[in-house]
Amino acid sequence: MSGENSGPDFSRGGGLLVAVAQDNATGEVLMVAWMNQEAYEETLRTGRAVYFSRSRSKLWRKGEESGHVQTVLGIYLDCDADTILLKVEQTGAACHEGYKSCFFREVTAEGLKVIAERVVDTAALYAAKPD
Amino acid sequence: MSGENSGPDFSRGGGLLVAVAQDNATGEVLMVAWMNQEAYEETLRTGRAVYFSRSRSKLWRKGEESGHVQTVLGIYLDCDADTILLKVEQTGAACHEGYKSCFFREVTAEGLKVIAERVVDTAALYAAKPD
Repeated sequence: MSGENSGPDFSRGGGLLVAVAQDNATGEVLMVAWMNQEAYEETLRTGRAVYFSRSRSKLWRKGEESGHVQTVLGIYLDCDADTILLKVEQTGAACHEGYKSCFFREVTAEGLKVIAERVVDTAALYAAKPD
Repeated sequence: MSGENSGPDFSRGGGLLVAVAQDNATGEVLMVAWMNQEAYEETLRTGRAVYFSRSRSKLWRKGEESGHVQTVLGIYLDCDADTILLKVEQTGAACHEGYKSCFFREVTAEGLKVIAERVVDTAALYAAKPD
């Protein structure tokens, strides 16, 4: 599913492309992350969003620790085929800080203003490791 | 308007951050581009989206050739303050190919499928240079 006519062009961006996850029902932009070819292909194969973590240099199966998986309902490419848009159904919160979307702060003349409510108690979530 | 508590963190990403433009009225993701600090500050100051063109290595005042400007109605930052979300009112088409959104193709089992209609005749637009 790669190449100019069928999928993203991983010859661009050093093989790492920007991926935007958008809530399929509300249109809310949930997060922006990165995909390499392996992440993209696993996403296609499994129907769950898989990214590439630049900080950890490995595949990041979204929700593998938190359970907050993203079920992928549609994949779209931009005109250059070097940016990926996922329409997803988000379980729980996309943001590790417990907000539905990572974009929970607005730039205002008075500084950053939190414009959303936490939907998940992430302190409890990430503390509760399975044995 | 920079720094951890007031704006994007341009110490990340080599000073170039991902910026997502979303239609304020419909929620449609229009395009993804890049901003450096100068582009961000001009965007704040003017209320028009200004990006940094990586291919041309200079500021890209969206719509400066086409007239298809983006009026910025809101700016949001993600949890790491290294990704910018703009809610905009798009004049004409965001995409240089004449589609409202750059994400006009869906990945399907049969390859890429165009899922939108062109709203602008870009051949005429970019051919019609002012004297």
